[in-house]
Amino acid sequence: MIFDASEHPHRRRNLLTGEWVLVSPHRAKRPWQGEEAPPAPPPGPRHDPNCYLCPGNVRTSGERNPDYTGTFVFPNDFAAMRPDTPAPPNDPLFPAQGASGEARVICFSPDHSRSLPQLTDGERRMIVDTWADQSAELGARWAHVQLFENKGAMMGCSSPHPHGQVWAGDFVPAHVEREDEAQRGWLAEHGTVLLDAVAEREAGGEREVEANGHWLAIVPWWAAWPFETLIIARDPVVRMEDLSDAARDALAQLLGRLMARYDNLFSTSFPYSFGWHGAPHGNANTDGWRLHAHVFPPLLRSATVRKFMVGFEMLGEPQRDLTPEQAAQRLRAASPLLETTA
Amino acid sequence: MIFDASEHPHRRRNLLTGEWVLVSPHRAKRPWQGEEAPPAPPPGPRHDPNCYLCPGNVRTSGERNPDYTGTFVFPNDFAAMRPDTPAPPNDPLFPAQGASGEARVICFSPDHSRSLPQLTDGERRMIVDTWADQSAELGARWAHVQLFENKGAMMGCSSPHPHGQVWAGDFVPAHVEREDEAQRGWLAEHGTVLLDAVAEREAGGEREVEANGHWLAIVPWWAAWPFETLIIARDPVVRMEDLSDAARDALAQLLGRLMARYDNLFSTSFPYSFGWHGAPHGNANTDGWRLHAHVFPPLLRSATVRKFMVGFEMLGEPQRDLTPEQAAQRLRAASPLLETTA
Ligand SMILES: O=P(O)(O)O[C@H]1O[C@H](CO)[C@@H](O)[C@H](O)[C@H]1O
Ligand SMILES: O=P(O)(O)O[C@H]1O[C@H](CO)[C@@H](O)[C@H](O)[C@H]1O
Repeated sequence: MIFDASEHPHRRRNLLTGEWVLVSPHRAKRPWQGEEAPPAPPPGPRHDPNCYLCPGNVRTSGERNPDYTGTFVFPNDFAAMRPDTPAPPNDPLFPAQGASGEARVICFSPDHSRSLPQLTDGERRMIVDTWADQSAELGARWAHVQLFENKGAMMGCSSPHPHGQVWAGDFVPAHVEREDEAQRGWLAEHGTVLLDAVAEREAGGEREVEANGHWLAIVPWWAAWPFETLIIARDPVVRMEDLSDAARDALAQLLGRLMARYDNLFSTSFPYSFGWHGAPHGNANTDGWRLHAHVFPPLLRSATVRKFMVGFEMLGEPQRDLTPEQAAQRLRAASPLLETTA
Repeated sequence: MIFDASEHPHRRRNLLTGEWVLVSPHRAKRPWQGEEAPPAPPPGPRHDPNCYLCPGNVRTSGERNPDYTGTFVFPNDFAAMRPDTPAPPNDPLFPAQGASGEARVICFSPDHSRSLPQLTDGERRMIVDTWADQSAELGARWAHVQLFENKGAMMGCSSPHPHGQVWAGDFVPAHVEREDEAQRGWLAEHGTVLLDAVAEREAGGEREVEANGHWLAIVPWWAAWPFETLIIARDPVVRMEDLSDAARDALAQLLGRLMARYDNLFSTSFPYSFGWHGAPHGNANTDGWRLHAHVFPPLLRSATVRKFMVGFEMLGEPQRDLTPEQAAQRLRAASPLLETTA
């Protein structure tokens, strides 16, 4: 039998984490009898008096938001980390470690009703600048700065107002630690930067979704989520604050086009978790690193049928039901310009 | 400041996987404005003519189920693995591996309307025997046998009929591989079996939920899901088929009591993924291993408000909003006898 990736189950290894993914393409053919999520609600008003992120409104903390016009950053009222917390005792059977840090909320726009792909390139450029500023500022005092966005009720996002978060701490989170080791290891073994090698081979190929002179967006070889993408910086940068003016403009544009493809794919405001991985600020040596972002969207078949990472996935390893090549092909076939705002 | 686990954010390490979990107990205080899942539907009839798992009904494959009275095992019509598939080509940038195997569905009971805690000890004992038989039979020809159950629409379970699955393959899945390394490593370093050492220290302690002479169920020190539990075999067994008659009866009883506590906690049929980790059948040396099961339930605050493992969790590391000690205390406070069948 000749191997056919779109027919034969196989495993692929994630070079950034070392983890294997089981690819079972024929599984997409099974009928769906499980849960359907409620469809995404229609966009709200441009200003919602009950939203704690809208300009001029009062937050749970009692503070009033300014009448901001671009982005707006404030400390998370329910931060998962605090700047100065005592360290726990330790025991070989119960290993623990202190975790100090800061968490902030980043409002992307004063407009309550618009998501990332619905903003203009100019507005997205302000968000890119805010990410870079937060990374630089928090990176000066913390070991790692994690920028991310949860979008959509399906992703546990507690407010429809366009916003992201930044969590910075005195430790390198587990997934970043693994990527750090993998990128160092690749450099030591191959003498190249792992993600540069990936970008070079993927450019113009069957897993490419969006590209410009500064960025490449692909469904990675090892994607676990059905329509997962990886956005790789093509310039030799390791953190957001390293980005040139031109790279920031190019990112604002690429993000708009990529997110529009997602929204068009199932005619819905596509839910996802999205975030940046830059070299930990505590790292003296960042030679193997390349700045990149992960987009992890849960949808599988339609706006209401998601992939469940459960059972075998939780106990064994991630498993996917269509190939990354098929996913990339479908994202490429969707328009990069917003068609609907269902 | 004196460290207080129920007040101060900290990290705990999972000794079975090497992974860190961020514990942020004060987060549980934040108001919830996010998605509420629809409540679980009321139990269906004892026999549903449209259910492809009920006795006597015809499945998608066209085959008719026998009029079974205990458990019933059949090959998964949409198996993620097949017995004989060709191996993919390999490339340093695109690492791949063949994955052959078999997947089966295990009906727990002919009664469409009853879940694990609603069965009798005798009925659960038949399920334990079926697990043991499947492990032995499939383990004779595959490297690893993964037994699991997805319960509830929230966990992507596509049928309410009580059932589990078994996926066996010619590879050791990523999570089991990591547990294998950890248990070997612990033995090499400490000269003891990791989970024996854990069980000894946890017995009668603040994280214990259920116990009998053969089994211990705890919220592990490193639990990531709010009410995650770990069921550890107290006898020197490494796989389901090693279990003595007495241990099987004791398991049937413990599972009923543990699952009843879950159902009573939020007065709902508690969703979860649940499954067994035994030593891979391909292992010649299983000295560091101890048979155990993981229960991963998604609920956090109520029958309709779950924990979302998104954003920081997907990009950084798992994060939890109450301490494992608080979770264990609440499970202990719930009755081990079924009160409601909401
Ligand atoms: O096999 P089922 O029940 O149709 O499918 C369910 O369990 C599988 C194994 O955990 C998962 O891969 C699927 O995402 C989930 O929907
Ligand atoms: O901070 P939020 O938006 O209230 O909460 C959301 O994002 C957090 C960070 O990814 C997660 O830990 C929560 O489970 C999720 O509900």
